[in-house]
Amino acid sequence: MPKLDIETIPQSNKTGYPAPFDAAVAGRWWRRLAPVGGLTEMGASHVVLQPGAWSSQRHWHNDEDELLVMLTGEAVLVEDDGRTVLRPGDVCAWPKGATNGHHLINESDAPCSFIAISAGNRSGTGAYSDIDMKFDAAGYYRKDGTPYPTERMK
Amino acid sequence: MPKLDIETIPQSNKTGYPAPFDAAVAGRWWRRLAPVGGLTEMGASHVVLQPGAWSSQRHWHNDEDELLVMLTGEAVLVEDDGRTVLRPGDVCAWPKGATNGHHLINESDAPCSFIAISAGNRSGTGAYSDIDMKFDAAGYYRKDGTPYPTERMK
Repeated sequence: MPKLDIETIPQSNKTGYPAPFDAAVAGRWWRRLAPVGGLTEMGASHVVLQPGAWSSQRHWHNDEDELLVMLTGEAVLVEDDGRTVLRPGDVCAWPKGATNGHHLINESDAPCSFIAISAGNRSGTGAYSDIDMKFDAAGYYRKDGTPYPTERMK
Repeated sequence: MPKLDIETIPQSNKTGYPAPFDAAVAGRWWRRLAPVGGLTEMGASHVVLQPGAWSSQRHWHNDEDELLVMLTGEAVLVEDDGRTVLRPGDVCAWPKGATNGHHLINESDAPCSFIAISAGNRSGTGAYSDIDMKFDAAGYYRKDGTPYPTERMK
């Protein structure tokens, strides 16, 4: 059925981030839509951020484009050059290789939700703007290349 | 700016469909988001359907996945096996190669809007469920291969 029955898709707040970087995303509840929908050319997730939760550590991808569609509630997009409030119907685009890291923070007192889509080389790399961390397909590393002891979520 | 200023992006109701198949999409007003956002790994459009308008002729893609996120209003998804009403927050996924053709019809008396995303081989092929037409990157053809005299929109 092409219309996804989102409520029936398992929800998780798991993360591969090593401590202490995992704490900020404990209130991020995601559902993977692409496997349920049979899609192989893009990734797609339904994400709920509880009040206070971050969508991720502030990051960029070197090899994947990202698109976000706000569904409900309000979140603040944080980037190198400032803050932007996002509301339902807003759409954000982050091209691969743009090193202006981004994430969303739910600073409101109610949940917010969005759809996040990605396309490109899922085995690629990226890095984080505010912490000593970068990633590849397998895991997380300090910027000097020393691995952290956790694996990336698929 | 990653948050797209959708209202400032040019809107068009152009189509490459040959007559008489173009009439049903005359009330479909699209904006191309991916070029404005700098995305190259996916296509993304903001689409408004005026009352009565179709999103497309009922079709499928052999080489591209599609995802749709309803933003406002109401539309009816039509496929081989029936009709499904779509409302804000609904998400549909159409894997490449699934020959159960799909389109949306705005049967309401108000505009509706959605975001449509695609990824995969943009030079691929596809076909239409209800009319004597198929497509490749260059144009439209009868199912026996005879070309129609119009070009596909990019």
